[in-house]
Amino acid sequence: MNINSALKVGVLGFGGLGQAAARILTPKQEMTWVAAADLKGYSYCERGLDPDKLISTYHEKGSIGYCDPYGTFSNKSIQDLLETKAVDGYFLALPNLPNTFMADVTKQFVASGWRGVLVDALKRTSAVEQLLNLKDELAQAGITYLTGCGATPGLLTAAATIAAQSYAEVHHVRISFGVGIANWEAYRATIREDIAHLPGFDVEKAKGMSDAEVKTFLDKTNGILTLENMEHADDIMLELAGVCARDRVTVGGVVNTRSPKKPLSTNVQVTGRTFDGKISTHTFTLGDETSMAANVCGPAFGYLKAGIELHRRGIYGLFTAAEIMPKFVK
Amino acid sequence: MNINSALKVGVLGFGGLGQAAARILTPKQEMTWVAAADLKGYSYCERGLDPDKLISTYHEKGSIGYCDPYGTFSNKSIQDLLETKAVDGYFLALPNLPNTFMADVTKQFVASGWRGVLVDALKRTSAVEQLLNLKDELAQAGITYLTGCGATPGLLTAAATIAAQSYAEVHHVRISFGVGIANWEAYRATIREDIAHLPGFDVEKAKGMSDAEVKTFLDKTNGILTLENMEHADDIMLELAGVCARDRVTVGGVVNTRSPKKPLSTNVQVTGRTFDGKISTHTFTLGDETSMAANVCGPAFGYLKAGIELHRRGIYGLFTAAEIMPKFVK
Repeated sequence: MNINSALKVGVLGFGGLGQAAARILTPKQEMTWVAAADLKGYSYCERGLDPDKLISTYHEKGSIGYCDPYGTFSNKSIQDLLETKAVDGYFLALPNLPNTFMADVTKQFVASGWRGVLVDALKRTSAVEQLLNLKDELAQAGITYLTGCGATPGLLTAAATIAAQSYAEVHHVRISFGVGIANWEAYRATIREDIAHLPGFDVEKAKGMSDAEVKTFLDKTNGILTLENMEHADDIMLELAGVCARDRVTVGGVVNTRSPKKPLSTNVQVTGRTFDGKISTHTFTLGDETSMAANVCGPAFGYLKAGIELHRRGIYGLFTAAEIMPKFVK
Repeated sequence: MNINSALKVGVLGFGGLGQAAARILTPKQEMTWVAAADLKGYSYCERGLDPDKLISTYHEKGSIGYCDPYGTFSNKSIQDLLETKAVDGYFLALPNLPNTFMADVTKQFVASGWRGVLVDALKRTSAVEQLLNLKDELAQAGITYLTGCGATPGLLTAAATIAAQSYAEVHHVRISFGVGIANWEAYRATIREDIAHLPGFDVEKAKGMSDAEVKTFLDKTNGILTLENMEHADDIMLELAGVCARDRVTVGGVVNTRSPKKPLSTNVQVTGRTFDGKISTHTFTLGDETSMAANVCGPAFGYLKAGIELHRRGIYGLFTAAEIMPKFVK
């Protein structure tokens, strides 16, 4: 692939993740960032969008629909893009909440007649379960959908699948993540999703919190969120890949919302028994300097590239990050 | 896949690696070990071969061709198997030396008209280069060949490809392996391959060493082989996968031929620059208790399963462990 045949890529959702995705895409030779959408509008330019302009417009005016000349206001941005603009694949950088959101958006794609590749960075098991129900519809629609393609699930789930190969039986996959962000306001949706995992909270309650309520809550914990036994789709993805039953997969972590320094090194440990009876553990550890955005969006586009190769071979349907090798995007 | 539709798998070569492969395959539900071959003969049983019997026959009599009732003497074992026996895929557990061996065997497969999946655990860059020359022939023959599917290249190369996803640019992939084996005689071919990497040696010279000469050489080093800047196919595989230029990949290691304890924990470090300008390193480390046999043969069969899925979709040709996600074999 060269610049002339660069893949046309769209990003749906323009919060912290969508903006980071734009920054990551811009220098790529093999992909051109042609489309973006938020709740109130979208931008499209087949020669490539300008991230600085879109990000500043979003911050100043609340929607990329205000961009001149490539912005359009719409309360049906996704539908407009699907019906009128040429895009090879989309990264769904949408909030995970409500939990049915990704599946609802997927139904829009299926209904539109659009054919191409979708990649998400979903977190919850139940959200993947909803997508599994759409597997046949996606295949029939000519859509190749790769789910769980962020950091965890995603990067670490794929590493766990690789690690599992040494074992005759996998006993435990233990994912421990550390996230440090300078301020929670840059990732409002993500932090609410994290809070939803805490005892005494659920998705509805977390989503209903005002910014002031989140801030008050974080003040009580010194900005630290400690998460255990989280509902994370790594479990169902590893089960679907045949690595182990989902109850052998645990995910926990510590989020510091007041410092970009990670409170612990994000890692996945895969413990199993080898054919010759040894119990051992392989460990994959992420470098502390890598941000959540790099570890989520990088893999997402690697899977998008792999998905486009599948799509060109006529392979449609639903796949997870544990089944497909992501491709490095230059 | 259930026991009734288990994949029929063959193992070519019956040295240390081939024997370990037999042990790994035997308890699998999704695969049946139906065929094996050494230089002097082969064994075939579509209900599954008995590893104890084949291994003891090989040690006592020098060839599995002596096995009764499933053994056959032949100086063209591979050809006989290809022409007369139903096998879905083969693991080529053959010596890497001479360096043209794997490509020569591959030409036999192509010429035979057999269609199926081949997996190797090749080590050297130049051996992969020879296979690359056969890419079109493999595709036309209806063969799906996955190369470099052992531990390194293989498991660690795949992990490096996953790790690379966090980075905008990969600066260095550094593979350091530790191998401990109780006695070198169990892996005569492998140890000669390692010696060939040492200063003052080459493939021809190492292959020409008698067992007594190898023993004398190892006596001088207390059984330790320290290897640096090895010619390892991880480099070309990561280059082909677009991760980085091959000169950014280095492979070295320490082999202790007198103790199963590893002299260092085998690991791969992937250093790169993220989109937001951070330099960092992801690390994937294998548990010390896992043997070379587990880390080579486990992945090989994981890739064989993935290869059979590709083959069933009509996808033929040459692929590497850095392009395809291995599938866990139950």
